[in-house]
Amino acid sequence: MSGESVTLDLLQRKMDQFAKERDWEKFHSPRNLLLAMVGEVGELSEIFQWKGEVPKGLPDWKEEEKVHLGEELSDVLLYLIRLSDICGIDLGKAALRKIELNALKYPVKGCSNNVTNTSTSD
Amino acid sequence: MSGESVTLDLLQRKMDQFAKERDWEKFHSPRNLLLAMVGEVGELSEIFQWKGEVPKGLPDWKEEEKVHLGEELSDVLLYLIRLSDICGIDLGKAALRKIELNALKYPVKGCSNNVTNTSTSD
Amino acid sequence: MSGESVTLDLLQRKMDQFAKERDWEKFHSPRNLLLAMVGEVGELSEIFQWKGEVPKGLPDWKEEEKVHLGEELSDVLLYLIRLSDICGIDLGKAALRKIELNALKYPVKGCSNNVTNTSTSD
Amino acid sequence: MSGESVTLDLLQRKMDQFAKERDWEKFHSPRNLLLAMVGEVGELSEIFQWKGEVPKGLPDWKEEEKVHLGEELSDVLLYLIRLSDICGIDLGKAALRKIELNALKYPVKGCSNNVTNTSTSD
Repeated sequence: MSGESVTLDLLQRKMDQFAKERDWEKFHSPRNLLLAMVGEVGELSEIFQWKGEVPKGLPDWKEEEKVHLGEELSDVLLYLIRLSDICGIDLGKAALRKIELNALKYPVKGCSNNVTNTSTSD
Repeated sequence: MSGESVTLDLLQRKMDQFAKERDWEKFHSPRNLLLAMVGEVGELSEIFQWKGEVPKGLPDWKEEEKVHLGEELSDVLLYLIRLSDICGIDLGKAALRKIELNALKYPVKGCSNNVTNTSTSD
Repeated sequence: MSGESVTLDLLQRKMDQFAKERDWEKFHSPRNLLLAMVGEVGELSEIFQWKGEVPKGLPDWKEEEKVHLGEELSDVLLYLIRLSDICGIDLGKAALRKIELNALKYPVKGCSNNVTNTSTSD
Repeated sequence: MSGESVTLDLLQRKMDQFAKERDWEKFHSPRNLLLAMVGEVGELSEIFQWKGEVPKGLPDWKEEEKVHLGEELSDVLLYLIRLSDICGIDLGKAALRKIELNALKYPVKGCSNNVTNTSTSD
């Protein structure tokens, strides 16, 4: 299966079902999930920590390293989706809105016409 | 618009277009994006830092606090999706696979039948 | 030995010697060390992630859990000190100065006389 | 004042006094402090996020950037020290012990004699 049609909503429902089936809902408070996500961000960082700068597409990485990377990226994503759900936030809607806000904050003209621009996307 | 049908793929394409239009692709190396994501995780943590434990659904939060929370959750998500894309990882596919791996690691029976179980989902 | 007289400078010199002896200086670039520290922050967070709120002094923790916690706190500290050293920052001096800046930013009177004050130390 | 003789103990006492004077002890629970530290790690990461690889000593950084960096490094340190104190951990003692454990885990011979060694200090 390609991941092309994977919605945030699908992953949210799967995580909800996963927790229900295992009686883990009692563990899934907002701050518990946040700290679990920080833990996964740490594991993701460990993959990159001793590598120095890494080129786009990771051309020199072994297949197993890329698989591991995909797992850690997923762990962050899944806790992020679960945290949003438990907080009552519609993450997909919020993300679309945030992109629109960013577009207002960083208009295309102001960036593309200014070659010395060092503004960034945060 | 509801966020129900928002795919990871849609957000990935929007982020790609956003960077292209602003000539920001040169900034978007894997480790730059990773550190930018860590920065956003920090901002997300700041929202929760002095609150003590917080109940599900955030019943006592003001609407503006929830909007702010949605923005910070989105910032983490958008950098995570961009990082995955730049690394050549199909995040949706990886996330579905990770849920399956987690289901094998934590079978339903082993959890639900064992009331003293303190295993967690990491 | 009590830790009472442990200076940041002592730990910095020990870390420097440790890296030299193992020919690890080549790995210790600023961003490598920063990501290594984020990794350790993740491990520290994992200790607290499923615990809900935890009282001061950790009265219910087993001795081995406290030992583990001390190790993870130390890992964060040691990478932080090493990162500062590699960046040419005198961390002890900077920390004393930051406390003074914080004291100016949050004067005692403004805080202690205002019982509804919810300002925080960030 | 040079930072050479700054002990962890001195900073711990200053942080304790700071919180007492402002009646902030009620905010300083272990997980609140941990999340506050994660917030500061985020701010530290933001300094490095768009810079690509950065050489040791930060030769091209402006003085004001280094001052800012020192402040963010300090913020992480101060919350880390406060978190340790509130958890009842002697951080200086733990850090010295951790260095000894690391020395046992990564003996000098095994590293220096093996030029293809890619082991790291985590």
